[in-house]
Amino acid sequence: MGYSILPDIATEILVPLAAVVGIAFSLLQYVLVSKVKMSPEEVSGKNGGPTDYLIEEEEGLNDHNVVAKCAEIQNAISEGATSFLFTEYKYVTMFMGAFAVLIFLFLGSVEGFSTEPQPCTYSKDKYCKPALATAIFSTISFLLGAVTSLISGFLGMKIATYANARTTLEARKGVGKAFIVAFRSGAVMGFLLAANGLLVLYIAINLFKIYYGDDWEGLFEAITGYGLGGSSMALFGRVAGGIYTKAADVGADLVGKVERNIPEDDPRNPAVIADNVGDNVGDIAGMGSDLFGSYAESSCAALVVASISSFGINHDLTGMMYPLLISSMGIIVCLITTLFATDFFEIKDVKSIEPGLKNQLIISTVLMTVGIAIVSWVALPSSFTIFNFGVQKTVKNWYLFFCVAVGLWAGLVIGFVTEYYTSNAYSPVQDVADSCRTGAATNVIFGLALGYKSVIIPIFAIAVSIFVSFSFAAMYGIAVAALGMLSTIATGLAIDAYGPISDNAGGIAEMAGMSHRIRERTDALDAAGNTTAAIGKGFAIGSAALVSLALFGAFVSRAAITTVDVLTPKVFIGLIVGAMLPYWFSAMTMKSVGRAALEMVEEVRRQFNTIPGLMEGTAKPDYATCVKISTDASIREMIPPGALVMLTPLIVGVLFGVETLSGVLAGSLVSGVQIAISASNTGGAWDNAKKYIEAGASEHARTLGPKGSDPHKAAVIGDTIGDPLKDTSGPSLNILIKLMAVESLVFAPFFATHGGILFKYL
Amino acid sequence: MGYSILPDIATEILVPLAAVVGIAFSLLQYVLVSKVKMSPEEVSGKNGGPTDYLIEEEEGLNDHNVVAKCAEIQNAISEGATSFLFTEYKYVTMFMGAFAVLIFLFLGSVEGFSTEPQPCTYSKDKYCKPALATAIFSTISFLLGAVTSLISGFLGMKIATYANARTTLEARKGVGKAFIVAFRSGAVMGFLLAANGLLVLYIAINLFKIYYGDDWEGLFEAITGYGLGGSSMALFGRVAGGIYTKAADVGADLVGKVERNIPEDDPRNPAVIADNVGDNVGDIAGMGSDLFGSYAESSCAALVVASISSFGINHDLTGMMYPLLISSMGIIVCLITTLFATDFFEIKDVKSIEPGLKNQLIISTVLMTVGIAIVSWVALPSSFTIFNFGVQKTVKNWYLFFCVAVGLWAGLVIGFVTEYYTSNAYSPVQDVADSCRTGAATNVIFGLALGYKSVIIPIFAIAVSIFVSFSFAAMYGIAVAALGMLSTIATGLAIDAYGPISDNAGGIAEMAGMSHRIRERTDALDAAGNTTAAIGKGFAIGSAALVSLALFGAFVSRAAITTVDVLTPKVFIGLIVGAMLPYWFSAMTMKSVGRAALEMVEEVRRQFNTIPGLMEGTAKPDYATCVKISTDASIREMIPPGALVMLTPLIVGVLFGVETLSGVLAGSLVSGVQIAISASNTGGAWDNAKKYIEAGASEHARTLGPKGSDPHKAAVIGDTIGDPLKDTSGPSLNILIKLMAVESLVFAPFFATHGGILFKYL
Repeated sequence: MGYSILPDIATEILVPLAAVVGIAFSLLQYVLVSKVKMSPEEVSGKNGGPTDYLIEEEEGLNDHNVVAKCAEIQNAISEGATSFLFTEYKYVTMFMGAFAVLIFLFLGSVEGFSTEPQPCTYSKDKYCKPALATAIFSTISFLLGAVTSLISGFLGMKIATYANARTTLEARKGVGKAFIVAFRSGAVMGFLLAANGLLVLYIAINLFKIYYGDDWEGLFEAITGYGLGGSSMALFGRVAGGIYTKAADVGADLVGKVERNIPEDDPRNPAVIADNVGDNVGDIAGMGSDLFGSYAESSCAALVVASISSFGINHDLTGMMYPLLISSMGIIVCLITTLFATDFFEIKDVKSIEPGLKNQLIISTVLMTVGIAIVSWVALPSSFTIFNFGVQKTVKNWYLFFCVAVGLWAGLVIGFVTEYYTSNAYSPVQDVADSCRTGAATNVIFGLALGYKSVIIPIFAIAVSIFVSFSFAAMYGIAVAALGMLSTIATGLAIDAYGPISDNAGGIAEMAGMSHRIRERTDALDAAGNTTAAIGKGFAIGSAALVSLALFGAFVSRAAITTVDVLTPKVFIGLIVGAMLPYWFSAMTMKSVGRAALEMVEEVRRQFNTIPGLMEGTAKPDYATCVKISTDASIREMIPPGALVMLTPLIVGVLFGVETLSGVLAGSLVSGVQIAISASNTGGAWDNAKKYIEAGASEHARTLGPKGSDPHKAAVIGDTIGDPLKDTSGPSLNILIKLMAVESLVFAPFFATHGGILFKYL
Repeated sequence: MGYSILPDIATEILVPLAAVVGIAFSLLQYVLVSKVKMSPEEVSGKNGGPTDYLIEEEEGLNDHNVVAKCAEIQNAISEGATSFLFTEYKYVTMFMGAFAVLIFLFLGSVEGFSTEPQPCTYSKDKYCKPALATAIFSTISFLLGAVTSLISGFLGMKIATYANARTTLEARKGVGKAFIVAFRSGAVMGFLLAANGLLVLYIAINLFKIYYGDDWEGLFEAITGYGLGGSSMALFGRVAGGIYTKAADVGADLVGKVERNIPEDDPRNPAVIADNVGDNVGDIAGMGSDLFGSYAESSCAALVVASISSFGINHDLTGMMYPLLISSMGIIVCLITTLFATDFFEIKDVKSIEPGLKNQLIISTVLMTVGIAIVSWVALPSSFTIFNFGVQKTVKNWYLFFCVAVGLWAGLVIGFVTEYYTSNAYSPVQDVADSCRTGAATNVIFGLALGYKSVIIPIFAIAVSIFVSFSFAAMYGIAVAALGMLSTIATGLAIDAYGPISDNAGGIAEMAGMSHRIRERTDALDAAGNTTAAIGKGFAIGSAALVSLALFGAFVSRAAITTVDVLTPKVFIGLIVGAMLPYWFSAMTMKSVGRAALEMVEEVRRQFNTIPGLMEGTAKPDYATCVKISTDASIREMIPPGALVMLTPLIVGVLFGVETLSGVLAGSLVSGVQIAISASNTGGAWDNAKKYIEAGASEHARTLGPKGSDPHKAAVIGDTIGDPLKDTSGPSLNILIKLMAVESLVFAPFFATHGGILFKYL
């Protein structure tokens, strides 16, 4: 079998070192962003007068009031977001506490809470720690995952609300300066999240090892709780955040844009602050938790399979830590990649923003390919075995290189296909925009068709990844392929977070009454951000598909099933019901957005009708009530879909057993991934079709516009329909498929022992 | 094992007898419909003057002109439909010919076109007919199925276009009289199709037996071609008909209702004839071919499994013919059920139409339950064996009763759930209508959510049917469960066909310039027809799910696979790609409708702009050009989706082999059924939400209306979006999942022998 080139002690140093470097880099970016001052006094004080660096003076906007106003708006957004997240966390914490108890009771009861050591599952001649220990440590790692996810989301939101007004102010100096602020802030979040996730996992493994010692099987089974915790938190974050942001957005648009004919982000609109808060709690905190969950789960899936493979059996620490070494390499690669955007090159005009962001993806992918080769070469023995449903499969180190690389490159393919279908630089979105000529109905028909069509290539990319990685290294291959897709997560998140920050920056410019030139610059930043947000969602979904399959495989191994045969009725009914769950879940979340938006519409209408002088701009709207409506609605509405996802594996496992549960997992995976991709691309396409008409950048676009024309009105309707699809139900489906799989994995011993009571007693 | 109570000779008589009775009953209904005369002379001649039976005279509409006008319009519709179907058949015939050659070559090559007898697959000690014979007879039965399907669709269209104007004329005498004409005409189609399908199948089996003799395995394998032929024809019928009808409908509405503000079916609209033709070629001919296909396939699936079970091995003819006896019983039961609608009770007012139609479903289901019990008791030995993936499973006769009955009742459950979600008598559609208050966007969001939600119970109903029937009698159980759901097909089709006939009747009333009282009556007939059409689609989808699973099982048996393990990469990539196919297919068909509708819009606009006096009603539009646009577009656009469905099994089977193909079939089944249900219910709900606002029958509805109000405009947008969903892409998906399965079944020996070359040589 042989040994790795990299000594264990080097692994023990390199992993935490990479994490610390990531955190340090993140702090550095933060310091650079914080140099943009938000108090007018300092600006004029330090620079000897505003004239020498603020170019907007000639327009009469460069007064202290503008900066103060920006600071004030930023403050309102930040406060709204913080207060919402605290409310959300309050409820979720209660839930997490209850669920932690459930985990402990279910897993503890597997061996009747016995404290006696038991024979290991995969090495029958050895003794492993009691099931009670697994129960305790699974519960601890569950809570650890939940807290890490919570912190990831919260800090992301904090930096985003810290950066939005700074981006606006920098936009006065030019588009390049504004881009750097927004991008650096995104990088703060990306690196913090990637490094933090890695560090906590590493520390947890080392602490657990103190108790577990040589029982790696038990140790890494307990660690799976980390993934479950991360994803449970992410579920509520995504769903509640998604409902919040879209209720506010749809509500604000329906009254403001459609009924009152005032522009987006107009400060007279009472829902405008809630809308901007929503971007931060939904797109930033929600996305952060989601991708952290994927990262944690794919690491856990790889580790648990490795623990029953030769790495685990031979206690080959470096081999075992291969997934963490890949992530460590990812942090370093992303660090270098970031420098290309912030230091090596400079964004000088509007046109180079989108290529600049796309280059980030390409550079990180190319560099990471080399990185994977290095890690695979030094960290793996030239030959080893991987557990594959009952048998050990012999694998060579370069096999794993291909597994990780195929995931990484499949991510890039999915990213570019997503871009093709959602950017208005290409014909699909232009066709959708063109169909607005005949009204909203054809716009919707073409948009839905576009979303459906956009799943084809991503599914083939995922299928190829699965086939290659599975053929090379069974379920371990799939887990590391998922990790490959997520290895450049720091860059991916930086690009992702950049979008809502720019969006907010535009909103603040509008609300602060800054000139249209500033607004044009932030709009350009935002338009690029829209496409990259769609790319980010593509990554999130693609990786979720691979992660769920890896978790599914780990679940099957842990539940001691060797085949999941579609030709048995138990499995088939699971498959068809599982394929239905994403529809049920989407129905819930879409209806929630619809209901919450209707509430918001009524409140906004009420304010317009009862506050005298609001339309004239002489009176201020009551922003707080709208913030409260979004908060209350999203907290209330997150419960049913959350319960559906969290309870389904428990109910199916307990009543119908592990075979049916396998069917449910496979069904929801293959069905959910399609709806998720089509929903988010349809929504993205509608959004950009509208922007295409508004921008009027081509002859064709101008025949459809301008703002307020009939085709534009049809485009606005499409955009509004797309909002819940692309920002609520679509992205939440990632979590549905991952979470059900990881939950099944954690509870597998219980289901295998006590599950399926309906079939047992009937 | 024992013998059946019913002697073989009785079976040989009863099956064709039931078919002949069905055909005779159908002709009787036709004669009764034909008593309504379309020439004004005869009317006044026979009845001694119009006054004594035409109630409309006081409104001054009872002149010969009206009748002549109706006859003229009917003629135009009938001619348009006939000419379209002939064009369609011309192209499809070429395709069918080519595909027949392919079947012969592929199946013939299994044993290298050898004419030597070969050992039977399931009874190794016996000799069966050569593979070449299977190739020849499969080709013949394929052509037979295609021709039967073609005739079914064509005759359905003929009777529908024969009945529409007659319904209009009878509406002058009262709603009850009009109902009877429309319903009887639907029954003509229902009985003709059910009886014809049964008779042709019966004759084919008996003729083939002359050659095959005791080789029942070969005989019934060859018969599977019948199902493939039926469904191939149905695919093109559904897709082309669906594109035709919706291109015309959407095109007519977008210009007529939205731009020109003229009512639906206004004779000034150039696309109005094409729209009415569409109802007949899409909803009648397409639906007829589709359900015939399901019927043929479920029979074939049951027969092929039975042939390798004890019925086939022991040459128990009556047991073997159990599926055909169930269908025979179904014809008799439906005959009695029809009398309840036409003779035992009378529809006297508008309110009793919908209950009258629903009672048809309930009566037929209750009677059929008794019928199934009788057939299961007399036609089956008390105990026998059924082939179950390599082993023979012992089954009792009352097991099969439960299998058929669970399918039958699941159909009823699906029907009622569909009604609940699509009828505007219940809260889901009313909620959707209410959401129109805030515009088209919320209408679409709520409508999509409704469709997603409406899949939940039908999927559980299907899952329960699968579990029960599979547990009792393996794949044979599922096949007969599908047959159970389809056993009342004559009644189901009668109700289904009644809808478009009433719709056309309303159109003719409008075009002939008849009074609003007539139009109100036909509208009431049509509204009930809308709901029953949705119920019919529910049945079609539910049965398609069961049929495909049964065919899938038969394919797996014939391809000699014993497990389809999701945990192998070959199967899993098939599963995820299969789940993607319905999206690909829907994208194609929706885009086709969109494109064709845009062409139609341009032509209609052109006519309004260039024909002087058209809006004033002094000049006639050029209907023929619109008919031609719809015809050309649908023929052109049916090719790509048709090719996708027909080629996928061939490509996957040849390149990747039977395991991957199994995955594709399972994936497309579990994913397609969800999209099909949600698409057709969303569309139905939008349609009825619009009708709810238009009718203004409740306090709530009146706050949303009247026609032309903003909520009504939003509802019209939803209705237009729903058109391709509910009438093109949704129902075509049934055929996608069935057809891929039956095609795989027919080609199974070839794939098993020569397939999977990519994996073999890589």
